Parts: sequence; structure tokens; C-alpha cells
Amino acid sequence: MSYIELAADLRSAIEQQDTAAIRHLVAEMQLADLAEFIQHEQEDTTLSLLDYLPLDERASAFGYLEEETQSALAAEMDDATLAELLHHMSADERADLFKLLDEARQQGLLRRLAHAEREDIRKLASYEEGTAGALMTSEYVAVPAEMDVATALEKVRRTGPNAETIYQIYCVDDEGRLTGTLSLREMILANPHATLASLMVEELVVAKVDTPQEEVARLISRYDLMALPVTNGGERLVGIVTYDDAMDVAEEEATEDMHKSVSVGKLEGGLRSASLFDLYRKRIVWLVLLVFANIFSGAGIAYFEETIEAYIALVFFLPLLVDSGGNAGSQAATLMVRGMATGDVRTRDWARLLGREVSVAIALGLTMALAVSVVGIFRAGTEIAMVVAMSMVLIVIMGSLIGMILPFLLNRLGWDPATASAPLVTSIADAVGVLIYFAIATAVLGLPA
Amino acid sequence: MSYIELAADLRSAIEQQDTAAIRHLVAEMQLADLAEFIQHEQEDTTLSLLDYLPLDERASAFGYLEEETQSALAAEMDDATLAELLHHMSADERADLFKLLDEARQQGLLRRLAHAEREDIRKLASYEEGTAGALMTSEYVAVPAEMDVATALEKVRRTGPNAETIYQIYCVDDEGRLTGTLSLREMILANPHATLASLMVEELVVAKVDTPQEEVARLISRYDLMALPVTNGGERLVGIVTYDDAMDVAEEEATEDMHKSVSVGKLEGGLRSASLFDLYRKRIVWLVLLVFANIFSGAGIAYFEETIEAYIALVFFLPLLVDSGGNAGSQAATLMVRGMATGDVRTRDWARLLGREVSVAIALGLTMALAVSVVGIFRAGTEIAMVVAMSMVLIVIMGSLIGMILPFLLNRLGWDPATASAPLVTSIADAVGVLIYFAIATAVLGLPA
Repeated sequence: MSYIELAADLRSAIEQQDTAAIRHLVAEMQLADLAEFIQHEQEDTTLSLLDYLPLDERASAFGYLEEETQSALAAEMDDATLAELLHHMSADERADLFKLLDEARQQGLLRRLAHAEREDIRKLASYEEGTAGALMTSEYVAVPAEMDVATALEKVRRTGPNAETIYQIYCVDDEGRLTGTLSLREMILANPHATLASLMVEELVVAKVDTPQEEVARLISRYDLMALPVTNGGERLVGIVTYDDAMDVAEEEATEDMHKSVSVGKLEGGLRSASLFDLYRKRIVWLVLLVFANIFSGAGIAYFEETIEAYIALVFFLPLLVDSGGNAGSQAATLMVRGMATGDVRTRDWARLLGREVSVAIALGLTMALAVSVVGIFRAGTEIAMVVAMSMVLIVIMGSLIGMILPFLLNRLGWDPATASAPLVTSIADAVGVLIYFAIATAVLGLPA
Repeated sequence: MSYIELAADLRSAIEQQDTAAIRHLVAEMQLADLAEFIQHEQEDTTLSLLDYLPLDERASAFGYLEEETQSALAAEMDDATLAELLHHMSADERADLFKLLDEARQQGLLRRLAHAEREDIRKLASYEEGTAGALMTSEYVAVPAEMDVATALEKVRRTGPNAETIYQIYCVDDEGRLTGTLSLREMILANPHATLASLMVEELVVAKVDTPQEEVARLISRYDLMALPVTNGGERLVGIVTYDDAMDVAEEEATEDMHKSVSVGKLEGGLRSASLFDLYRKRIVWLVLLVFANIFSGAGIAYFEETIEAYIALVFFLPLLVDSGGNAGSQAATLMVRGMATGDVRTRDWARLLGREVSVAIALGLTMALAVSVVGIFRAGTEIAMVVAMSMVLIVIMGSLIGMILPFLLNRLGWDPATASAPLVTSIADAVGVLIYFAIATAVLGLPA
């Protein structure tokens, strides 16, 4: 059954207070679906659907909930229940939940946890949000490289239930430094008496605790890793980030970049769960800034007031010309920004890409000039059509260059290239477009005496 | 060593024709890095770096290359070499490469392959691009549910070297129908005499061969799967899609959506490897269409020519007002489109989200009206400032509604909601903005007799 069907059944079971049906449906649902239901469709908040699950599944399901819901549910639990839940959660999700609690609550909970767990939470919770440290889990299988395969497999069996993944095994030396890695698959297929050292791969892809999370996701995706080992300042292995967390980060980062492409700031949670005030706040800043940016276009128009009054027909073509520059520029900017985000475009490619963009922009400009000159001749005669066509070519080229250069310029200044949004590029291209258009018009048509 | 350093070393080893150093560096590099080097940095195309690798690694590295490079390298190999390479590639990558070849070549190669391989390639290559069928591999571990754990583990050891993943095991009945799944981890930790049926999960997340690839990626990400089983029209298991392919699809789809958000069509390969003509072709279509769309704005301005001539000061505020509507609209559209793509927004949420958007848009409009009226009073006096402020509120609300409604409307019509790009929304909002502004101006200021 699909989520939609299960959710409908669960809704009606809840309405009819049919406990047996609720229990059956909750058991049958994927945990991610149950989490979505609790978050977005459950109206009766006094009913705790999670209580229908055995403790370990309850702990897993909890990890699927959004932070806001986690906080709300945690607030309703007493310390003993919450400590029990934390104990059953995976190390990374546990640390994330812990960070949501206020300090008094944190202290109360730490007292209830075993020493090792306490230290683990403290350490994982100490890394800055958005880094490999904050993303990683401390539950991995690490063994000495001298160990033989059979002994290592035995160790995997023992640590298995608690590790986030047992499919990638990490070899460490006496000081905990990462020396190599091998997969469970290689171990299973190997001679049981071989040492891990003879099987392990030593060319490692590794992140540091302060590696930004988008870089972590990029590494996991680029090298098709199941998990990425994370080391501290030295070479000591302190955690791993698994592919499923990398997928979430990649999606989150793509969403953030798409939002930035229209000058929307980072929203906590999705569009559906964001508060109205947050939606307002993350949109208004750039909208107001852009109002002021557009004053330049207005000022440009005012400057050419006499030309406009003399040839009022010019105004007909104004939106079409300036928008074309903005559109071509937005395209160039977004192509660059996305290329930089995926790693397809590197800074050293810039000069070559700029050259390509100029060629493409000339071709785009000429085609669009052709299209617009048909309209121009029909509407306003040959002379104005010529002005419009010439302006179009120049405006499209300038717009494209602005869109192409802005992300690199921002990157150089240490800003996020994604700040070069469609609205920002459009505003700049608009102002430039106004100047180009009316300057050409004044030059070609002349001012009436 | 990072990719940048390794690539620099490899470049100089190639320049100095230092074969020993080349061999050493190629062995040390990650296959993904070697593929990038071959694709983007190797100038001497007569040198085949892949030949420095053992055959199985060469086959894996080949899978990292872009289609264009794969075609070019395959064209230089004779049938025997290519057949040998195909034999060592994973089933899904093999089928992808096979599809790139012309028919004569395909027939020649099929003759050289073993029967089972031939059938496998034929079948996998037959699915439509962009579906689960085209993405999946046929190399998975399937066992009868009645088997006990020890026997199944033995089977995993035997099929291991050829399977894409051995970490998820699929249980099938006599007719090959999928009945359940369990992980290698569960098997390793379980009693060796237990039957798989007693351990397996029966609530399965499954795709069909014609499930679109973006849906496949979404399922794998949502349910944190390592692999997603794919069934044919019946319930018969025919393949699996692994998480690493899902990550690539998710990235590809996000890139496509970002490009669509500025009206750029789907590019084959990245920005860096796209041909100039492809870049032109994928941008020009909408750019020209939008030129014509913007004629409506021009026509609107022309219609109000008298008002403009009477109050030329109005033109100063024109770019700022119409752009504000376009910007707010682009924001609303992109928030929707991305929300729909990630599954955060469902069609049934639409009415509620529309209500929220109206509230937010009113708040945005009022704030922006306040900002612009300061400029308005300073520049053009109270009366025009009032016109501008009133227009701003209405234009922002209308722009937001257009941006919000368009993706849903397109979706309803069976189009991709991502077609509601920033440039398209801006063009529509511009035309509406022109009408609102000059209509209000004419009504408030009146026309000179």
C-alpha cells in the first residue's frame, strides 16, 4: 500500500479509536511514512503513535521527525523516558536531539546516561552545525590492521548491533590513526587467515571534523562511498558519515541553492512547515534591497527623459529589451552557480568558460535581435527597429557577461556564489539595459532641437 | 593527496614520459579522479591511461566517464577488446555503454559475448531512458525465503564477486516474485539455522521498471535504502537500483530543475562539456518566446501613453514596481516548484499554502510599499508616492499569486511544474504590473483635459 492509502486508513482508525487497527497500521508503515504522518496529518496530538512501536523502532522513527516536532515531543516526556529513548537512538541522531534541549534539561539527562554515552553525546554535540563533525556518527567498526579476517568478522558480529554500518571496516593503529579501509564484502570473500593489512585500501578519501557538509556530500557522491571517515586535527579517526545522511545534505543544499537563486534565505524545515514570519523574513530582505537597486534603472530612464518624450514609441520596447538582458544573465549566472556547486566548474576553467559564454551570448543576441526587429519594423518603422535590434545584441551580451562574472566575483570575495540570484542579476542587467538602449537611441535618432 | 595535486603530478609525469611515475600515480588515484583527468585534463589523447589499470579496475573507471568520452574510447577499440571490457563492467553500466554504440557494432559485440550476458544486455538496454529499468542492475542476490541463514550466506559468498551489492538480500518465490528482503547485517547477526522467512521484512518499498528515475531517487532517499528492488509488470523481481546511482540521479534532477528555473533546457553532460551549439539551443527557445511575451508589457505601456506623457515622473518608478512583482513571483514559484520536487509539498496542501502565501505576500507588499513611498515622496511628491505605494502592494500580491498558481496549473495540465521559471513568471508579472500601475495612476491622478 502506498503512503497515501496507509495514511487514509490510519486517519480513520484514529477517528474510530480502533486501537487494534492503529497498532496494525503503525507496524506496517515505513518509519519515514509514520514520521510524516505524525508531523503533518495527525490532528489529535494527545495520541502518541510512537508508543505503538517497540523501543528501538520508536528511536529510529524519532530520528525521521523534523527538529520542531522532536522538540515538542521531547518536552512532553519525563527525563527517564527521554533518557531511555536517547539510549536507543543512533549516536548522530541522539546528539542532534540533545542539541535541541535547553541546558537544564541536558544536565538532567546526562546524569541518567552511562559514562561512555555521556562522553559521546558531549563530543558529538560540540561540533559546529553544517560540518562533518556535526553530521558524523561515532558508531563504526574500527580494528587493528594486523588482525586476521576471521577475528575481525567475529568483532563485526559483536559490535554489529550498535554500529551505524558494518559494511565498511576501518583499520587504525595504536594511536587510533586511520591507516586503511576495507568492505565487509571483501572480508567475506577473503581467506579467513589473511590479515586486514593485506586486503585494505590505503588511498583514502577522508574528511576532517570541520569539513563543510556540502563538501562531505560531494565526496560521498563523487567516490560512490558508503561511508566517509572523519578525522580530527591529527589523523585520528573520530567518526563516519554514511551515504544516507549525505543524500539528505545534498537535497538540503540543492534546495538552499534553488531558494538563493531567487533571493530567498535559508528556511528551517520545508516550505510546508516554515512559519509565516520565517517565510516573510527570508524573502523581504532582498526584495527591499532590490527595490533600491532598481532605482538605478529608474534614474537611467529619467536621465533620458527628453529622448523618451521625443520618441515615445521607444517605451514600447523597453520591457522586452531590459528583460532579455536579465533573462540571458540569469541563465548564465545559474549555469555557473550550479556548475560550481556540483564541482563541474572549477575556478581555473573560468577564462575558457567566459570565452564560450561570449560566443553563445553573441549568437543569442543576434537571434533575439532578428526576432525583435520583425516586431520593430511592424510597430515603429525601420529606424527604431534598427535601434532596438542593435540594443538587443549589446544588452544580451552585457547581461550574459554580468551573469557569468558575478558568481566568480562573489566567490573571490569569499561570498556564496549563489548570491548571484536571478533577481539580482536581472536588476543589474536592467539598469545596464536602460543605459544601452537610450544611449543608442539618442545617438542614432538624435535629440529634437 | 588531493585531486588537484595528483592531477598536477600526473600532468608532469605525462610530459616527461615517465612511465613508472604514470603507473604509480594512476594506481594511487581514485577511479573517479582518474576519469575526471582523462576527460578534462588529458591533452595527449593517444595515451590511454586506462591501460595502466588491471582489467576489472579499468572496467570500473570506464563507468565513471561521461557518455561522450565512453563513445570516443570505445570507437578506438577493436571488438575483442571492447567485448572483454564489457564483460568486466557492472551490468547497468555495461548496458548504458552498449546503448551508445551503433547497431552494427552492437551486433558484432553480442556475438562475442556469452549467452547469459547477451540476454542481460539486451534486456537492460531495452528500457526507456529515465526509468527505473534503465537505471537498475540485474546483479543482485536473490534466494528462496525457505532457505536457512547459513546456506544463504554460502550463496552470498559464491555470488558476491558479481553482485552490485551483497548487503541487501532479496527473497523470491518459485515464480521469481519478490516476497521479502533482509540485510546481510541481519543475516550475520542471526542464528545460522533460522529461515530467511522468519527474519525478512515483508513491507517493501518497490519500484516498477517504468517508474520515473526521479521517483526512484526520492524513494531511496526517503526510506534510507541501500538498494531499491524493481519489479516488472507482475511482481517478478528483475533488478535493483543502488543508492549511489540514486545520488547521481538526484544531483542530475536538481541541476535540471535549477536550469529550468531560468528557462534553460536539459543539457547533456555538464556546463563544462556541453557543446556551444547545445548551450545556444537550450537557451534560445525560451529567450525568444519571452521576447514575445514581453510585448504585452510594451503594449500595456503604449496603451497608457497619454498618462505617461502627462506624468513623465511615473516612468522613474516603472522598473522598480514591475521588477518587484516579478521578484516576489519568482520566489513564490521557486519555493513551490522545489517543494513539489522534493515531495515536501503535495497537491492536497495547495489550498492551505495559497492562503499562507496571500498572508505573506500582503506583509511583503506593505513593507515594500513603505520602502518605496519614502523614495516616492522625496522624488515626486505625495500624490505620486501614494500611487506608487498602492501599486506596490497590489503588484507584489498579484506577482506572488501568479508565481504560486502557475506551477500547480502546469502540473494539472500534465506539464513539468518547473516550467514556471523565474523569467516566465517575471514576464507575466511585468505585464500585470504595468497595467496595475498605470491604471491606478490614471484613476488617481486623472488625465489632463
